[in-house]
Amino acid sequence: MKKKVILSKLQRIFKKHNLPNNHSKICADYLLKAELINAQSHGLARLKMYCDRLKKGLINSKPKIKIKKISSSISHINADNSIGFVAADIGIKVAIKNAKKTGIGLVAIKKSGHYGLSSFYAEQAVKKNLIVFCFTNAPPALAPHGAKKSLFGTNPICFGTPTGNTPFIFDSSASIINRGKIRRAEKLGLKIPFGVALNKKGKITTDAKQALQGTQLPIAGFKGSGLAWMVDILSGVLTGSSHGGKTKDPFDDFSGPQNVGHLFITINPNVFSGNNFLKEMKKNIKLVKKLPKAKGFSSIMYPGERKNKIYKKNINKDISIPSKILKEMEDLDANE
Amino acid sequence: MKKKVILSKLQRIFKKHNLPNNHSKICADYLLKAELINAQSHGLARLKMYCDRLKKGLINSKPKIKIKKISSSISHINADNSIGFVAADIGIKVAIKNAKKTGIGLVAIKKSGHYGLSSFYAEQAVKKNLIVFCFTNAPPALAPHGAKKSLFGTNPICFGTPTGNTPFIFDSSASIINRGKIRRAEKLGLKIPFGVALNKKGKITTDAKQALQGTQLPIAGFKGSGLAWMVDILSGVLTGSSHGGKTKDPFDDFSGPQNVGHLFITINPNVFSGNNFLKEMKKNIKLVKKLPKAKGFSSIMYPGERKNKIYKKNINKDISIPSKILKEMEDLDANE
Repeated sequence: MKKKVILSKLQRIFKKHNLPNNHSKICADYLLKAELINAQSHGLARLKMYCDRLKKGLINSKPKIKIKKISSSISHINADNSIGFVAADIGIKVAIKNAKKTGIGLVAIKKSGHYGLSSFYAEQAVKKNLIVFCFTNAPPALAPHGAKKSLFGTNPICFGTPTGNTPFIFDSSASIINRGKIRRAEKLGLKIPFGVALNKKGKITTDAKQALQGTQLPIAGFKGSGLAWMVDILSGVLTGSSHGGKTKDPFDDFSGPQNVGHLFITINPNVFSGNNFLKEMKKNIKLVKKLPKAKGFSSIMYPGERKNKIYKKNINKDISIPSKILKEMEDLDANE
Repeated sequence: MKKKVILSKLQRIFKKHNLPNNHSKICADYLLKAELINAQSHGLARLKMYCDRLKKGLINSKPKIKIKKISSSISHINADNSIGFVAADIGIKVAIKNAKKTGIGLVAIKKSGHYGLSSFYAEQAVKKNLIVFCFTNAPPALAPHGAKKSLFGTNPICFGTPTGNTPFIFDSSASIINRGKIRRAEKLGLKIPFGVALNKKGKITTDAKQALQGTQLPIAGFKGSGLAWMVDILSGVLTGSSHGGKTKDPFDDFSGPQNVGHLFITINPNVFSGNNFLKEMKKNIKLVKKLPKAKGFSSIMYPGERKNKIYKKNINKDISIPSKILKEMEDLDANE
């Protein structure tokens, strides 16, 4: 399907679900962007979920988002249960402004929801020549080290920096694969890789549904568990949002708003050595790229580079949408 | 050996190597502290290395450490090739002061050296009721994803937060095990675990010497490689220190000072919701701890808790020192 058609369809659907014009546009742009970087797990496959929650009033379509300025560097945003895309879009812009003014920005967002990919927001800061961290928590998916029940979300860490070229964006969940991939596999009847999740009984499973009922495995055992815990503290406890397994699953739990939290830290990399930062950054990448390649590799890419290549390739192509997801879109578009 | 005896011996040895009184005390305290938390890889096994570098003038025993105030939140420290312990000890104190004043502190340290364990510094900030990140780079030990030669250090990420009880300190290298463990195994003729390092030819090895000549494996493949790269940028490129594989190995490379960089970020957790932070933090830990336990676990511990228990157990005991390391100490103490 043509991108233009998808965009206007998405905007229409969000507007039908009572989102204001500008919010509908933000959400449509981010959902399409996920498809364009082949992160279909965070794209159209989630549209129905967002609409279901909007319909039930669990996402507030007319939020009164409050930005509290704590200092020139620090802001606290109460997103009033808005859709995560909008809360995070506002939040990263505040974090950018703060770092531009003082060298460092810290923005905590509470009462938000699933915001898609952290890289959406990191990229904005990097394009304004800032270093950035984005943290968000998520509903239970990982068992803490030593426990046999999920509590932490897949809780990604995202770090970005300018390079003078394509942004360096490292965006990694604390789980071996992200939960969206398992969600989408379930929806489309696909298997998931071996060794990434356990079923309810604690046995490895490649069945997506059983994996969702069981628990995902963290990267590197206690290290991944520790990273997920850190992100829960930063985006849940610190921001004043839900944490400790209380963040609601957007697909399964309709007992209230998600109350996800996000934390953004932005740093002007020029504060220490001026323009030397970019010069050294280029040198750094060059040094890595010229290393002898491992078997099966023709080049060494930095985080974010591959996704950028995919984006550039996809930007001129139509997007193919699995029929099941297309049907969902058509139904949502047809409804009153 | 009695702790008091070790401490005075260490201080005497550092003073013999021209460190001023106060610097000798800082270094002795940190080396002993590593032993007390069973991190022998960062303890007495490194004493000779520090002394060798001091003797050769590669660690500056009389550094003129300059602290440049960029704003009330941000400082840049030129450590003048001081021993890492001293540079980082000064740096974390500045980062604490900045966050106490403005809510957030950012301190970059350049021209430093190996500083022991990140948790030494994180703990200080946490004990002043701050959230903290400590990053440091290190000499080549890990191959970037796609390369067959080491370039990144084991580059730890360290995160700490107050809990109202024992500090939560997550301190994890980007490698499966830390390099100090391999160094110490080599020194004492011990094997290293299977699956943590490759020899020069790219084959898995349990021989410590071969592992040091080869490359260590990152946690979770490209994810660990990305984390190590992030830390190299934050502590190397951003601070104005060596990076991209140019940080010198303190054990093997006597061609110049190490030029390691450190970056500390400190946050006052009360800026967003006041004392509620600690209340929610306690709730968070309680929720995790009461989860059903996995097989083989009688309790779930948060990062830093186990080390704290070990410390409390060791604090009243004498320290046993392998004869090879004891001999090194005696030789260093006997010299001129």
